[in-house]
Amino acid sequence: MANTGKNNRSNFQAALFGLGLDRDSAVPLHLQLAGALRGLLIGGGFAGERLPPSRAMAGELGVSRMTVTTAYDQLAAEGYLSARQGSGTFVAAHLPHLAPPAAPRAALPAPPQMPHPFHPGMPDQALFPHRLWARHLERAWRSPEPALLAARPDPFGWAPLRAAIAEHLAAWRGLGCSPEQVVVTAGAWDAIDILRGAALPPGARLAVEDPGWPVLQRLLERAGLVPEPVRIDGDGLDPAHLPAGLAAAMVTPSRHYPTGAALPLARRLALLAWAERRDALVIEDDYDSEFRYQGQPLPSLAGLDGLRRTIYMGSFSKLLSPGLRIGYLVLPRPLLDPVRAHLEVTGTRVSLLPQPALAAFMSSGEFATHLRRMRRIYARRQAFLLQALEPAAGLLELRPDPSGMHLVLRLGPALAGRATDREIAAMAEAEGLLVRALSAHARLPDPPQGLILGYAGFGEDRLGRAAERLVAVLRRAAG
Amino acid sequence: MANTGKNNRSNFQAALFGLGLDRDSAVPLHLQLAGALRGLLIGGGFAGERLPPSRAMAGELGVSRMTVTTAYDQLAAEGYLSARQGSGTFVAAHLPHLAPPAAPRAALPAPPQMPHPFHPGMPDQALFPHRLWARHLERAWRSPEPALLAARPDPFGWAPLRAAIAEHLAAWRGLGCSPEQVVVTAGAWDAIDILRGAALPPGARLAVEDPGWPVLQRLLERAGLVPEPVRIDGDGLDPAHLPAGLAAAMVTPSRHYPTGAALPLARRLALLAWAERRDALVIEDDYDSEFRYQGQPLPSLAGLDGLRRTIYMGSFSKLLSPGLRIGYLVLPRPLLDPVRAHLEVTGTRVSLLPQPALAAFMSSGEFATHLRRMRRIYARRQAFLLQALEPAAGLLELRPDPSGMHLVLRLGPALAGRATDREIAAMAEAEGLLVRALSAHARLPDPPQGLILGYAGFGEDRLGRAAERLVAVLRRAAG
Repeated sequence: MANTGKNNRSNFQAALFGLGLDRDSAVPLHLQLAGALRGLLIGGGFAGERLPPSRAMAGELGVSRMTVTTAYDQLAAEGYLSARQGSGTFVAAHLPHLAPPAAPRAALPAPPQMPHPFHPGMPDQALFPHRLWARHLERAWRSPEPALLAARPDPFGWAPLRAAIAEHLAAWRGLGCSPEQVVVTAGAWDAIDILRGAALPPGARLAVEDPGWPVLQRLLERAGLVPEPVRIDGDGLDPAHLPAGLAAAMVTPSRHYPTGAALPLARRLALLAWAERRDALVIEDDYDSEFRYQGQPLPSLAGLDGLRRTIYMGSFSKLLSPGLRIGYLVLPRPLLDPVRAHLEVTGTRVSLLPQPALAAFMSSGEFATHLRRMRRIYARRQAFLLQALEPAAGLLELRPDPSGMHLVLRLGPALAGRATDREIAAMAEAEGLLVRALSAHARLPDPPQGLILGYAGFGEDRLGRAAERLVAVLRRAAG
Repeated sequence: MANTGKNNRSNFQAALFGLGLDRDSAVPLHLQLAGALRGLLIGGGFAGERLPPSRAMAGELGVSRMTVTTAYDQLAAEGYLSARQGSGTFVAAHLPHLAPPAAPRAALPAPPQMPHPFHPGMPDQALFPHRLWARHLERAWRSPEPALLAARPDPFGWAPLRAAIAEHLAAWRGLGCSPEQVVVTAGAWDAIDILRGAALPPGARLAVEDPGWPVLQRLLERAGLVPEPVRIDGDGLDPAHLPAGLAAAMVTPSRHYPTGAALPLARRLALLAWAERRDALVIEDDYDSEFRYQGQPLPSLAGLDGLRRTIYMGSFSKLLSPGLRIGYLVLPRPLLDPVRAHLEVTGTRVSLLPQPALAAFMSSGEFATHLRRMRRIYARRQAFLLQALEPAAGLLELRPDPSGMHLVLRLGPALAGRATDREIAAMAEAEGLLVRALSAHARLPDPPQGLILGYAGFGEDRLGRAAERLVAVLRRAAG
């Protein structure tokens, strides 16, 4: 439509000499040149044109003559060019129908490693019912129901999944909500971005717990929000210490991350009263509360609030797999319209593909069965780890936690003044152990010292061997 | 861990009277109350406490007494409360193990409609090989390879998919790139957001084509960027008309959206020279160039540039399904590190779930086979639509387009001064037709007038009937 008749020799020359080659690329220069030339010729309009001699072309492009002749030969073999003895190389009168050239293959970075003990927050994916899950995927898509093929899928997510999430929250988290309040997200970053676009102005200040989830502060900053770290104590965040001028407070009331502290009822009520008084929002990040081993699960803050000012944020990463990248928000009703207006512009970032399978997995009860099974297994693993660490009793304060997927163990008296948690984490890393330092999760000065030890993702064999190595590290650290 | 011994009667009273109920909710008040109460009791520490009489509770919460008694009865039936004849209602000494209450089900909004003719940009999903696709999904996940379960998946995407995309681009778009330059995204919004975070400062100004994709301008604004509309002519964007001070130009060189114009080589070279001179980026949005019916596919601008200053943006929405939400960026090498640093913080927003299936679908050649088949079918549909519109020859300028999934037909002389494209689109909508007005895709004054008619997603039966209705509308509009 565009090139015919407009291109001419000088255009061709300019295009040739303007071909871009990337000397830092892993793709050999002759392949780059052949690819760029092929692209140019496919554009059409150059049939019969003469190519510059290889020496001239090499000079213009600053490459070796061999690079040029190799590229010319390749394209001649593919039928794009024809070499006429003694008179040079020409663009073929009839180009071959676009043949797939072999793609230049460069080595990709090595795939990320399997998690090392004690990587926190990792579900044990070896125990996941993969075959069942794969069957749900296959069933949902082999002959998809028409709504799955809609021109513009509902940006709040697949309706049956939203209903299944609402049922799950009622059963497991004491949170009564309507499916229409549920927004399926692509995880925490997506959720924060949606809230920034629909509920929080740019530059809004949010209280975050300190210590806390270090990624959170960076995510908030990337989204154009301002995190305000607030020191937590043994009971989590104290609403009396919230600074003025906040648009929201982001909390982990059921299980403070990483310490595991549960926010007492009096503080929960005070936090909700604060939000009411200041016209602020509370964002409840409920990341692994399904795994509670003793007593009843703590109800969600959003349930206590009746979802008036509290936004509930959940995830399937800890329950199924980090790669799934599906989470959800449960919104107070006044936020439904602004969030919908925002998502109608941006569209959702969540693929529909996993959603019907996840809905079926949940509504069939298989998800709850899986969670209960993992809860039993994780409880045993925590007990096993604590026992395996018994030899380090003076070095670490060995305290069980009634819930979660990791332990936070404070440094014991035998280590006082001898090593910091960061030093121990570095020594452990040299032994192939991923031990996180509690103090590395804080921004405020004089953070508490402790080790974060994820146990959920590792069988007793690995946990036992890893505990032995950790005990040795601790003994070395204590001198 | 937290509540024991701290809660007392006054706490309980305060918590009860502070329970949040949402009068605008579709969830009945008694269900809300039961849910909130259940949540509170599950928290523990209130065993044996006496509840306020239903009348007092109703007065405090401002609900009817019936609402309170119904909620009390429900929780008594579940075992959370016990009613003692004559002395009131008490919290049970031993709470039932968290029983799943029936989730409150509210009607969700009706699922989005199937596309109406002439919805543009819709692939015909009825012709998609769903069974094959579902089998790939099942195979990838029934016994997933370890890298799919990695603790932290590569935020650039699944390596075999990135390799398959690089091969596809070499074969179909004349673009030679290394798989490591490919970033899998959750579509255009995600791609823009990534570029904003890693390559463009907040408030950066970007040239966009006018007319153009209207959503694009809003996406850029949402991302904190400033779109600068530049009037296009019959050959697309003229680089000579780019204003000063731009950080980038975002273009659709292979097929201008929506008019279908292809950017001539001279303008391509001028655009790349502009970018070099101004130290600016070019973002090439290549949204449906695989569907070219005559001549050779135009090579990508990024290929001509050798990916020096051009970022290539592709999508699978037009090729497979809008709900899939997978697209990709191909980056110049200098951007690889900044984008990786950005994504290491935010994580990817793309689920791994579809990626191995898509990689297998591509590398097996089934994807290319599907594209070739759809190309033949879409070409026939375009010809069929033009023929079916023959009776409107004086009302519309019936010009075939060598590529794409929609036609842009300018208004003919018989309509001049009688109806605008927007008026015709409104009349067509009343007839159940989705006809987009070309002028609605422009922000600058005096936009061109025409009708955008998507044909790819509709069989000949539907196209024929829709064309008849459109001809009738046009005749009415011409008076």
